[in-house]
Amino acid sequence: MRWKCTCAYDGTDFEGWQKQPHGLTVQNQIERALSQIFSQPIQIQGSGRTDAGVHAKGQVFHCDANWQHPPEKLIRALHSILPKSIKIVDATAVSDDFHARYSVCGKRYVYRYYLGRAGPMEERYLWACRELPVDLDAMNTAAQRLIGTHDFTAFSASHRKDNDPNPTKTLHRLEVQQEGSQLTLTTEGSGYLYRMVRSLAGALYAVGRNRLSADDISSILASCQRSHRIVTAPACGLFLDQVFYPSAQK
Amino acid sequence: MRWKCTCAYDGTDFEGWQKQPHGLTVQNQIERALSQIFSQPIQIQGSGRTDAGVHAKGQVFHCDANWQHPPEKLIRALHSILPKSIKIVDATAVSDDFHARYSVCGKRYVYRYYLGRAGPMEERYLWACRELPVDLDAMNTAAQRLIGTHDFTAFSASHRKDNDPNPTKTLHRLEVQQEGSQLTLTTEGSGYLYRMVRSLAGALYAVGRNRLSADDISSILASCQRSHRIVTAPACGLFLDQVFYPSAQK
Repeated sequence: MRWKCTCAYDGTDFEGWQKQPHGLTVQNQIERALSQIFSQPIQIQGSGRTDAGVHAKGQVFHCDANWQHPPEKLIRALHSILPKSIKIVDATAVSDDFHARYSVCGKRYVYRYYLGRAGPMEERYLWACRELPVDLDAMNTAAQRLIGTHDFTAFSASHRKDNDPNPTKTLHRLEVQQEGSQLTLTTEGSGYLYRMVRSLAGALYAVGRNRLSADDISSILASCQRSHRIVTAPACGLFLDQVFYPSAQK
Repeated sequence: MRWKCTCAYDGTDFEGWQKQPHGLTVQNQIERALSQIFSQPIQIQGSGRTDAGVHAKGQVFHCDANWQHPPEKLIRALHSILPKSIKIVDATAVSDDFHARYSVCGKRYVYRYYLGRAGPMEERYLWACRELPVDLDAMNTAAQRLIGTHDFTAFSASHRKDNDPNPTKTLHRLEVQQEGSQLTLTTEGSGYLYRMVRSLAGALYAVGRNRLSADDISSILASCQRSHRIVTAPACGLFLDQVFYPSAQK
């Protein structure tokens, strides 16, 4: 019996999603809670990793477990064990061919910047950029250069490239919106290289500050090499917003 | 040279405001940062304590320190040392007769409830009440019984009553507003007994759930004795919103 679960977490205090032998990771916490509920070891498969400090509103995992009660009861049981920083948003029984990682057809990430001094509650969940102002139009013009299918090696951290042999990804959406002092970058794509969204966020911020031009972005992309001109934006601003699956697999 | 400083903090990970010899408290953190900046021990005086886990948007403290540069520079220096969970919102030079505690003429507290399942980011900053629905009108009717000048002993935790010999306080405002699933209690008053706002928040929630009536609230108040029928609402929903001083002392 396979369950597709959607979860949200405040990643601040976790060493990322991925299970580690002695780490405080989100996957460790959820597996521990499930294993306690089912009185047997339960393993989960996430849609992919998130780095230390990165948050999620809609991370998806699957697990195989024989649960005969309403899903809501499983969620309540999990919440009674899990730390407050992890919430199960949904649990749905799915067919055995659903795979949280291999069935993924895309993901939406959101990156939040704040221009100026953010409060102590807000700063956990955004990148407080102390500099002002930014050129929003320039950011979106440069973002257009990145939409489409490209080798995104230039916008990834190279030392884990071996984990994903294919550096070519497709971005369907990459845009930045401003609301008061808050900037929100939204991207939807087929997949992402290691640290790719944070690299895009850092690069577009540099464009907004007129330190890089849209043409610089194009040539950095075309170089297929990481440039020292790209700064990786901090983890705290990044949210895995939604994981997309073919509608047949809901 | 006296400074009046306003600060905001995420109280989740602190053992309250008040300095403790080996505690992780907000006062400890700020004094440590100031002492480092001024290369000498600097002590601060807060407007009053907040409990472990309680947040602040406008806590006020004063300190005496010889700072000849613009206040903004002091704030930046503090932020380079303080944890992200503490922010200095304002620093203003004031006259020597300003006292952060003794000059207080009132305080505004906000208590946030959430009806239903809150996300992992929200739940740090509110009381996630899983029960639904609440009778908002009943809550505000009962709140009216508490406005005015009363002995609030029934709405305080007794074991620290000796810290404040006068149990009579004046509430100018006590009301609950609803916006979607979020309830916000706002209170303004001359002063508060130990755990008084959280006791009020717990009592009014019980009214909203029809477990207490407005008449119960009146009789509990008149009893001047703590009743087992009052539950202290959890710290995470409470914010010290603003401290009021006579306008002459800004």
